[in-house]
Amino acid sequence: MRKLINHPSNAAIESLEGFELAYRQLLRVHYSPNFIYRKDAPVRNKVALVSGSGSGHEPLNSGYVGKGMLDACCPGAIFTSPTPIQYLAATKAVHGGAGVLYVVKNYMGGVLNTDMALELAAEEGIAVASVLVHDDVAVDRDLNRRGTGATVFVEKIAGAAAEQGRSLPEVTAVAKRASEATRSMGVALTSCTSPSVGHPTFQLPEGQIEFGVGIHGEPGRRRALMAKSDEIVDMMLAPIMHDLRLRAHDRVLVLVSGLGGTPQHELYIVYRHLHHLLERHSIKVERQLVGNYITSLDMAGCMVSILRLDEELLTLWDAPVCTPTLSW
Amino acid sequence: MRKLINHPSNAAIESLEGFELAYRQLLRVHYSPNFIYRKDAPVRNKVALVSGSGSGHEPLNSGYVGKGMLDACCPGAIFTSPTPIQYLAATKAVHGGAGVLYVVKNYMGGVLNTDMALELAAEEGIAVASVLVHDDVAVDRDLNRRGTGATVFVEKIAGAAAEQGRSLPEVTAVAKRASEATRSMGVALTSCTSPSVGHPTFQLPEGQIEFGVGIHGEPGRRRALMAKSDEIVDMMLAPIMHDLRLRAHDRVLVLVSGLGGTPQHELYIVYRHLHHLLERHSIKVERQLVGNYITSLDMAGCMVSILRLDEELLTLWDAPVCTPTLSW
Repeated sequence: MRKLINHPSNAAIESLEGFELAYRQLLRVHYSPNFIYRKDAPVRNKVALVSGSGSGHEPLNSGYVGKGMLDACCPGAIFTSPTPIQYLAATKAVHGGAGVLYVVKNYMGGVLNTDMALELAAEEGIAVASVLVHDDVAVDRDLNRRGTGATVFVEKIAGAAAEQGRSLPEVTAVAKRASEATRSMGVALTSCTSPSVGHPTFQLPEGQIEFGVGIHGEPGRRRALMAKSDEIVDMMLAPIMHDLRLRAHDRVLVLVSGLGGTPQHELYIVYRHLHHLLERHSIKVERQLVGNYITSLDMAGCMVSILRLDEELLTLWDAPVCTPTLSW
Repeated sequence: MRKLINHPSNAAIESLEGFELAYRQLLRVHYSPNFIYRKDAPVRNKVALVSGSGSGHEPLNSGYVGKGMLDACCPGAIFTSPTPIQYLAATKAVHGGAGVLYVVKNYMGGVLNTDMALELAAEEGIAVASVLVHDDVAVDRDLNRRGTGATVFVEKIAGAAAEQGRSLPEVTAVAKRASEATRSMGVALTSCTSPSVGHPTFQLPEGQIEFGVGIHGEPGRRRALMAKSDEIVDMMLAPIMHDLRLRAHDRVLVLVSGLGGTPQHELYIVYRHLHHLLERHSIKVERQLVGNYITSLDMAGCMVSILRLDEELLTLWDAPVCTPTLSW
């Protein structure tokens, strides 16, 4: 295992400590239970946004804590959902009197734990709502779709709405709109290796790719033969376009995220073809992110997420944000 | 070879095209000869900054083109210096009447090609100066030290000085001060694979690391056994501190850059220990960057760069910047 770690069991916490040292101007970390929160939390009379996920997906979610996006995030162990105790502690720390919205990626552990945290918070008299992110078209059945790249869009858009002083039902509604307007698809060229496991999560023979891979290395739609980048992008875009019913003159927000082990150099080759394909369908890319935004440890490969924009979603996307990863 | 490319010979140009499509709000690309320039260039009566390097080090230098940093950069083929023709064309495009400064990493090709471009520009009546970046303490002899992470510091600091309206000799002087105040050291856990070669640049047996690796996969000081992250950081910091003669109460700017194939997760583990070590020596980390800032395709590993700050260098570092990668 070739990793810059000390001991597998300490990797997540040491990474969190390093992250805190690097961004003390923006945020703070609470330990035991672990959560990261924006330095000026709680913000009075603002809906607070809380998200969580296993570690190993950085910059998701720690890189999105700050003004205009998340009030707090709960990092779990590597690839493991944070606990209800973490969510509850974060909720109490950032609750500013206007309620709290949980952004929940659709995985069984995450859904169960946030449901439980939601009940615990309600018992303490804190109004909490949640929005489900389930954008991964690699999974066929609508209900069990995993939450992936749309998380970045939902957190940014809901964060901007909260910053405007909208109410909890209003922020929840726009978060839901952003979630429902996004579809994603990932492809792995290699597996990832979790420090505690020490060997690749799955075996991918030379010359094959995992098409539709999940961000924890879950199997995708199918194994496919390694192909040219443009052909892979063709295969990724088709189900997204179909499922989102993208049409000529639609306007979109695009994310091309590396999965941790793929250099920028390649991500721009992916983006180039994706942009041209969309253009060919008369779909206008209004905004785009190309880089590492949601990752899977050291996995090589990429994820494409597309959100169909309307004027309101675009305005919220463009609103000022100040986090370690997104800042404008 | 597991890469998101179409054909090795097109990888650099397609990546450049994708980059341009993603950042049209900030910059433009000129093709044949290839260079990237800020959208509002030339800026009248401002010293223009031009840098260049082989492709494969992204975001260096393309991610640093924009207000407050580079006016233009010349991307070469992968790991290959751009040509004098590229430098000359970029120079003419961004020259705003106050002269041009080349930021030159110390590699034979880069030095020869910028020297030649400098002469050609002089023949056209454009005043051009250059600053040499040679911060890599992995190489023992002072004169032949390679230019690595200090490039990011020099480009940001000189860019801010140019934006203030300083003269060419003044911008050159502060760029030189930033360059001389920085030392760097890199370590590779894996080789990188250049698309045109198709196999790893060097072989690194399981359980070994290349200590002092160059950003093109040049051999380092020595092969070492894979160790804990904290031990690797100890080994990296010692020669930097020694060579830079860092002392108690010094103030520093720190870069921990992934080399392309290492996830953020691990970089924060590296930064954590580095920060603590410096603190133990009563050295104050005033600012830091932790992420992928100078890379070597898909190499796993990291580079540490440290610049000894003074009030002027810190002010210039903090000055506003608006590029694809650095923005504040």
